[in-house]
Amino acid sequence: METGNLVSFRPDIKVLDATIRDGGLVNNFAFSDEFVKDLYHANIKAGVDYMEFGYRADKSIFSVDDFGKWKFCNEEDIRSIVGDNNTDLKIAVMTDVGRTDYKNDVIPKSESVVDLIRVATYVHQIPTAIDMIEDAKNKGYEVSVNIMAVSKVNDQDITNCLEELSKSSADIIYLVDSFGAFYPEQIRSLTDKYMNVAERCGKKIGIHAHNNQQLAFASTIEALTHGASYLDATVCGMGRGAGNCFMESLLGFLKNPKYSLSPIMDLVSKHMIDMKKDYTWGYDIPYLLTGVLNSHPSTAIKFIKDGRTDYSKFQQELLDL
Amino acid sequence: METGNLVSFRPDIKVLDATIRDGGLVNNFAFSDEFVKDLYHANIKAGVDYMEFGYRADKSIFSVDDFGKWKFCNEEDIRSIVGDNNTDLKIAVMTDVGRTDYKNDVIPKSESVVDLIRVATYVHQIPTAIDMIEDAKNKGYEVSVNIMAVSKVNDQDITNCLEELSKSSADIIYLVDSFGAFYPEQIRSLTDKYMNVAERCGKKIGIHAHNNQQLAFASTIEALTHGASYLDATVCGMGRGAGNCFMESLLGFLKNPKYSLSPIMDLVSKHMIDMKKDYTWGYDIPYLLTGVLNSHPSTAIKFIKDGRTDYSKFQQELLDL
Repeated sequence: METGNLVSFRPDIKVLDATIRDGGLVNNFAFSDEFVKDLYHANIKAGVDYMEFGYRADKSIFSVDDFGKWKFCNEEDIRSIVGDNNTDLKIAVMTDVGRTDYKNDVIPKSESVVDLIRVATYVHQIPTAIDMIEDAKNKGYEVSVNIMAVSKVNDQDITNCLEELSKSSADIIYLVDSFGAFYPEQIRSLTDKYMNVAERCGKKIGIHAHNNQQLAFASTIEALTHGASYLDATVCGMGRGAGNCFMESLLGFLKNPKYSLSPIMDLVSKHMIDMKKDYTWGYDIPYLLTGVLNSHPSTAIKFIKDGRTDYSKFQQELLDL
Repeated sequence: METGNLVSFRPDIKVLDATIRDGGLVNNFAFSDEFVKDLYHANIKAGVDYMEFGYRADKSIFSVDDFGKWKFCNEEDIRSIVGDNNTDLKIAVMTDVGRTDYKNDVIPKSESVVDLIRVATYVHQIPTAIDMIEDAKNKGYEVSVNIMAVSKVNDQDITNCLEELSKSSADIIYLVDSFGAFYPEQIRSLTDKYMNVAERCGKKIGIHAHNNQQLAFASTIEALTHGASYLDATVCGMGRGAGNCFMESLLGFLKNPKYSLSPIMDLVSKHMIDMKKDYTWGYDIPYLLTGVLNSHPSTAIKFIKDGRTDYSKFQQELLDL
């Protein structure tokens, strides 16, 4: 386990840009090719380690007419952006348990520019998640498993879940604060819990935080200090609801000289100011309330979409859910 | 010293609303009487402990024609809002070292509805600050001292400063992150340092954080966990530059049943949505950069006011300051 102080740097740290994947939940994956290419080149220049392009969703469940192409991440669509990706930036896609035809749609690594398969699972789906992990590992990929919504799971179930995953081939286990519900002291103790498993079985721990309480960056650096080494962030925090840890904050914090904030800020200047005019995400009172109450942001997203500002009434509605 | 866990509450906690004072730096103290009255009543209903009305600035230095009235906080102006203030909400004003004619403008407590005088000082002004503390204490007030810009002060100077203040009559010593430069682990160790002095001499510790790195709320609850009991916040984080800890977040976090978030959310519905259209504050990349570089937000305020978005160039300019 590596930790560190504020002037050290940790060579084990990996920064993962999830802008297209989590941000795609804001704009239905309607990113222009120019944007995705510019983000790809900005990530390379910034020293970002992984770029997540989206989901590899099952086309028998989701219609390609209803979503932008990064919901599906066809191999040829990724290649149209990255070519053979002869760079240090690795490519990731997310596969959701129950929403991915992984046996067919995850092709062998030898035929793909994708490096990392990220299996997203709820605790009750772990057996399927493990099958997906082994499938991707056998096909030659790096594999992470992102256990979602653990703020709704009791401690013993998390323990059992980590125990099962410790026996899997996953390289990285992610602590995910899906609802932006955790306070930093909880993140610290959960990171310790995850790290205990990771250290025993040679896996790494990642952190994926949401900004409902404006704690995503704080939670990310607290997890980092306690040993997490895979750090998710998005440009301008773009992501569903309150969004994510801001890439700008994270790169401003990290002391490893390989990282550079400037290319990301240039992308913000060129694209994100307009993006913020076209789409809405980020901290707002309704997301604070779902965060504090540890519930899914969908009700808050609807509240804001409906143009409501009667926050106190919304709080009462949430208590009745 | 009282600390606590996430389901306990600390009866020693005091919440201070600094919206008019720190928010006045955004709108030049141009709050309508209706707004100030509504905020006053919202604070009472919400169980907030103190409401800071503004500065008591020296009229021989600042012209009353150049600022709204809360720059000066005349006794009669406060009374026009609060009457004799027969409530549980206490009234605070801030007196800046070098900018306050405290001998004349701080009248005896027996003639004033003000309860708490907050002396704001830089470390090099401590002797004058102590004279102001003793003056206010002799006149019958509660007194706090807010040591500003400590992120620019070396550790030994902070130690010496706290030692001097430990001998003063101040009731509360505030840890102030003026530039939003501190990370939570620094806040924890500084709070411990301040608490060591406080516990020895019967004083309380307060925390006043800025949101340059979106860490104001995180820093506030970390300081709280380490023993700070006076917690500053503003509605919607309104305050100079990146603003402050959000009152909504803080009241959402505190478990003491005396606090209620609903009256503050109703104030946001009624006033703050329009206020955000008229004035600009809150997290933005330029403030992130001054925070990371531990410098005054004035350059970032100008950058934004000038409508610039060339963040990388601004970063280079900051490195040359």
